[in-house]
Amino acid sequence: MGSAAQSGERSGSALSRRVRAGIVGGTGYTGVELLRLLAAHPHAELRAITSRKEAGMPVAEMFPSLRGRVDLAFSDPAQASLADCDVVFFATPHGVAMEAAPRLVEAGVRLIDLAADFRLRDPLQFERWYRMPHACVKLLEEAVYGLPEVNREAIRRARIVGLPGCYPTSVQLGFKPLLAAGLVDPLHLIADCKSGVSGAGRKAEVGILFSEAADSLKAYGVGGHRHHPEIEQGLAGIAGAPVGLIFTPHLTPMIRGIHATLYARITRDADFQQLFEEHYRGEPFVDVMPAGSMPDTRSVRGANTCRLAVHRPHGGDTITVLSVIDNLVKGAAGQAVQNMNLMFDLPEAAGLGQIALLP
Amino acid sequence: MGSAAQSGERSGSALSRRVRAGIVGGTGYTGVELLRLLAAHPHAELRAITSRKEAGMPVAEMFPSLRGRVDLAFSDPAQASLADCDVVFFATPHGVAMEAAPRLVEAGVRLIDLAADFRLRDPLQFERWYRMPHACVKLLEEAVYGLPEVNREAIRRARIVGLPGCYPTSVQLGFKPLLAAGLVDPLHLIADCKSGVSGAGRKAEVGILFSEAADSLKAYGVGGHRHHPEIEQGLAGIAGAPVGLIFTPHLTPMIRGIHATLYARITRDADFQQLFEEHYRGEPFVDVMPAGSMPDTRSVRGANTCRLAVHRPHGGDTITVLSVIDNLVKGAAGQAVQNMNLMFDLPEAAGLGQIALLP
Amino acid sequence: MGSAAQSGERSGSALSRRVRAGIVGGTGYTGVELLRLLAAHPHAELRAITSRKEAGMPVAEMFPSLRGRVDLAFSDPAQASLADCDVVFFATPHGVAMEAAPRLVEAGVRLIDLAADFRLRDPLQFERWYRMPHACVKLLEEAVYGLPEVNREAIRRARIVGLPGCYPTSVQLGFKPLLAAGLVDPLHLIADCKSGVSGAGRKAEVGILFSEAADSLKAYGVGGHRHHPEIEQGLAGIAGAPVGLIFTPHLTPMIRGIHATLYARITRDADFQQLFEEHYRGEPFVDVMPAGSMPDTRSVRGANTCRLAVHRPHGGDTITVLSVIDNLVKGAAGQAVQNMNLMFDLPEAAGLGQIALLP
Amino acid sequence: MGSAAQSGERSGSALSRRVRAGIVGGTGYTGVELLRLLAAHPHAELRAITSRKEAGMPVAEMFPSLRGRVDLAFSDPAQASLADCDVVFFATPHGVAMEAAPRLVEAGVRLIDLAADFRLRDPLQFERWYRMPHACVKLLEEAVYGLPEVNREAIRRARIVGLPGCYPTSVQLGFKPLLAAGLVDPLHLIADCKSGVSGAGRKAEVGILFSEAADSLKAYGVGGHRHHPEIEQGLAGIAGAPVGLIFTPHLTPMIRGIHATLYARITRDADFQQLFEEHYRGEPFVDVMPAGSMPDTRSVRGANTCRLAVHRPHGGDTITVLSVIDNLVKGAAGQAVQNMNLMFDLPEAAGLGQIALLP
Repeated sequence: MGSAAQSGERSGSALSRRVRAGIVGGTGYTGVELLRLLAAHPHAELRAITSRKEAGMPVAEMFPSLRGRVDLAFSDPAQASLADCDVVFFATPHGVAMEAAPRLVEAGVRLIDLAADFRLRDPLQFERWYRMPHACVKLLEEAVYGLPEVNREAIRRARIVGLPGCYPTSVQLGFKPLLAAGLVDPLHLIADCKSGVSGAGRKAEVGILFSEAADSLKAYGVGGHRHHPEIEQGLAGIAGAPVGLIFTPHLTPMIRGIHATLYARITRDADFQQLFEEHYRGEPFVDVMPAGSMPDTRSVRGANTCRLAVHRPHGGDTITVLSVIDNLVKGAAGQAVQNMNLMFDLPEAAGLGQIALLP
Repeated sequence: MGSAAQSGERSGSALSRRVRAGIVGGTGYTGVELLRLLAAHPHAELRAITSRKEAGMPVAEMFPSLRGRVDLAFSDPAQASLADCDVVFFATPHGVAMEAAPRLVEAGVRLIDLAADFRLRDPLQFERWYRMPHACVKLLEEAVYGLPEVNREAIRRARIVGLPGCYPTSVQLGFKPLLAAGLVDPLHLIADCKSGVSGAGRKAEVGILFSEAADSLKAYGVGGHRHHPEIEQGLAGIAGAPVGLIFTPHLTPMIRGIHATLYARITRDADFQQLFEEHYRGEPFVDVMPAGSMPDTRSVRGANTCRLAVHRPHGGDTITVLSVIDNLVKGAAGQAVQNMNLMFDLPEAAGLGQIALLP
Repeated sequence: MGSAAQSGERSGSALSRRVRAGIVGGTGYTGVELLRLLAAHPHAELRAITSRKEAGMPVAEMFPSLRGRVDLAFSDPAQASLADCDVVFFATPHGVAMEAAPRLVEAGVRLIDLAADFRLRDPLQFERWYRMPHACVKLLEEAVYGLPEVNREAIRRARIVGLPGCYPTSVQLGFKPLLAAGLVDPLHLIADCKSGVSGAGRKAEVGILFSEAADSLKAYGVGGHRHHPEIEQGLAGIAGAPVGLIFTPHLTPMIRGIHATLYARITRDADFQQLFEEHYRGEPFVDVMPAGSMPDTRSVRGANTCRLAVHRPHGGDTITVLSVIDNLVKGAAGQAVQNMNLMFDLPEAAGLGQIALLP
Repeated sequence: MGSAAQSGERSGSALSRRVRAGIVGGTGYTGVELLRLLAAHPHAELRAITSRKEAGMPVAEMFPSLRGRVDLAFSDPAQASLADCDVVFFATPHGVAMEAAPRLVEAGVRLIDLAADFRLRDPLQFERWYRMPHACVKLLEEAVYGLPEVNREAIRRARIVGLPGCYPTSVQLGFKPLLAAGLVDPLHLIADCKSGVSGAGRKAEVGILFSEAADSLKAYGVGGHRHHPEIEQGLAGIAGAPVGLIFTPHLTPMIRGIHATLYARITRDADFQQLFEEHYRGEPFVDVMPAGSMPDTRSVRGANTCRLAVHRPHGGDTITVLSVIDNLVKGAAGQAVQNMNLMFDLPEAAGLGQIALLP
């Protein structure tokens, strides 16, 4: 992890003024997390936050944690002056951003979608997994997949960013050094992932009630999960070849956090610890731990960090990578801000200096 | 899951009187769970429970949940009349049972060890993993590994039972149908296991404090865990051949429960759902769920059940088995009582009819 | 706590056959808890369980904890042959039982309502707090408030029982000895209550999502809660005089459990410990702990026990009573079964011998 | 809540350089929280952190959340150059600070004790509750009780600050407006307090293990708690008269947070909402919520805020105040930094701009 994380506050922006930011759909967990980060961002100014259902309600009434820190009220998306923003974040359900994108892009607004509209390159794949045709295939073509550790330069110039999902972020960053170096069998990767419940969003559903999800653990989506094609697309890009992935997500009784436990069959020997350290040297938000470490998810709670450890159990032919992120920060809102920083030539770590809350 | 689970109370014991049971080391979680089960067992009578440190204290003072249900006080192990018992359970740290075994066995007492003294067949393996020489190699030779689904008949006649660990129970029951039928590559098995914190015992250690373990998740023992040789020994016995296993335990923020997510490479095709259903037909405490199911750990909370589901993601060449148990019941005290029932010719399900507590 | 709790299984029923029981509305937490208790009840037979929305679905499909233990499917309430039952439990929202009661009572079925339809004696009070007129004022007059420690004899003869709410059970049992003996100021009682989240039911609401309710704590209903008039009615009955109560419920991050912390100003001196012990001597499900004790809610998790401790801090003029129950057992389904046992001349503790699950 | 909370970063310090800070005893929860806050403080520089047991270990090895953010290693307290610091925080067990204080004060170092050595004005009270004689009665006389909302001016000049306990902070801030205005009976105050488990510290004790404290709730210290005399001392100072307090702390299954529910008998009528709002107008870290509000502890998780709501249930003669803080921030480390800011003429909110982590 480079020193940039500490020096996020240094100046250096090309903008002489603050970036004007808007949020569409601010009542979910990624929305309130964006508010937490942007309200304290030294180079951003929060201009509008929309919610059709809650229009008129002060944001701090719904989220008292923001009392005294965010004075905005939710505004009607139809009336919000999003076109006056430099950047608009979509913290909405799938399908919303792609409807609004053409008009905003035309108005010169840059767009970061935290949902899935601009993740999958193939519109047919999108249609298959999200059960709707893609509404702006043209813009999809130019959209950039917002994983800075893979696409940093493209992000700087992007008009539209499709932000990676939370699982995909943790899995891709964990497998990347291995696949980029061609050291493992790309056709038999396994990602056994454990997520906190906030990953399921702030929706009134029985399955994620406290009394259902507390003190219990289960797998879900074993037969097929929307993040599966996204991860395979990303890993294939890194490997430069097709990949095969078994992906098993689990719902675990914690609020935030993803722990991805990754397995790959070694095809060529190497010093894997050194490989990981060199691969991520200088990356501000990827932390390769010393050999033998096992990261806990709370070590990144509230922070924009992906913490990795690499193991080779019993010196055998399988490599095990442990990868943890906060699904709402490096897995969503923090990564969105990291993208914004890149897009507006701000220090990449600006506004992302939060230290994880422990305990 | 056969109907026996419901009819545990039917008579049929060869004994004309209740089995007299003693517990050595009753202040831990497996101890108090044994108390919960034995206090309500129709054919057992709790005669003594020992604790060196707490001798003289009424059991119900330490565990108020037992007020009005268990009248015993802890007694000094040196003075407890364990030799008058028919069976003695050792809910102690590793190394205690093997010291006491020769004297008790000679006195005609049968012995069920919930620790590791009689799990590993090879005394050198024991010494390597538990850092002490084995104290009674002779008795180790005759000890039976207490997994009824594998060793039912041997358990009936056993004088000494080494009860499986919690992880090993969940992993062996999940892989067993596949290995017994020879359908998967035995040399590249993966067991990604998630455990509740009670699996670590009732010890004053910082790492399992509420403020350390709550709202977080981490892997541990990736480089080597004591249950690894035990699982490999058991799986090799089932497969009739050497096995290779990657075993990754995780500490998760729940009290009870193990969720084992198992991966194996298919070498021969089959109807895996049917295989599992037939393999466990009639087993009173193994429940194969319908195709497509994903069990949650709470569905076995407090119950002596192992619940299994088998998946073949995307119809590929990897099989994924989901296996859940309550680590303190089917993974410890419940399985111990199941063994006792077999050893004394009681109905196998006697005293084990508890329905899981949900929510 | 009398010895009856241990001898629930002794015979003695006047019925030569099992009590035929039906459940209306079995998809909530009180419903599944009734299923857990009735499925293992030695003198009851589960005949029907209804759910309009889930008609046709096997109960064990919704609640896998019941696989192999409950073979029933949900049936349509309109078609279920509830009139063939001896007793019908209503585990429904408020307002359902009172609509169905006249027809069932006429058919000779006895009725236990776990909702509020038959709790408040005054139909105007009911209308004020539950926002609907009472549908069968006639039957309300004869209904019995199902708190056995207060109304045991009336319950035996009741055709309709209005089961106490969870908070009211914990608060009334805690204040009862003091008010019955006239030792405290009845006009300035304070009940500071902490509840697990399952008390809010199995409803898809944002406020009780895991990510909202975990790792946090808040008061609610400070300005007025439906259990307030119910508690005041019960306490006034016990005191034989009007009472004044401040009632502050809190939502706490646990699944089950209520901890009521009760404060009263002493008006006449007494040995309060002795008072409580004598008052509840022989009660099968009220456990007065030794002086100085502080019960935890887990000591009654899954059990039909109310555990009490009485304190007089610094020997001053305020008495503090600590009262814990499992809101789904002694606060709902367990108390319902206790009432059924009384109504059908079964041993009061039949089917209620579960020992609390600890840890 | 004044606007200062947002403008903590404005300049204005009298110091031309950063405040050099040392921490004694940095391995507990208040220690690591001080590290989190000081590492990001714009006007402070962390110079030394001591731990006898862990001397030599890098701080970030024990707390990986600090990797890349704190480069210090723990140093031996005997050898640490604490005398070179401007201020030293004692995050130690009771009794340590008072031993070290004379030497440090003589060296011109200012001292903030997060333990109890300088809280109680009366050394005999200290001896009674903490079971040791006070080691520097002289310095105790000049020590200032570090509650800025009461003692702001005295804190600015203090050489030694005894920081309030977590419960005392939440209770005093809640009762203060009422007692200062003389509107309630000071002799019959009730504080029913609920604390997260981190309040018990990072000690290897069975009672605060995850498996003991999760999914359960209990009162403790009902007969006497060390914070009781501290709270009474503080409230008496505010009231200008003796007070009588019933204080019931509860252990609840969350990591951080205190919820104090306060009851007082009204002796003189007033507009209590207005009273609270005016009383705390301009206070940077006390937030009086609108009438009818009920704060949750998570709304202050990680933030230095005390959030208050005042209720008068049913318009009766009892007032109910709800007061929430994060026990490790406004209840410990954050309040310590707030005191440091005052002592060194920094903006009071410097380094305390963290927004609560929600969810």
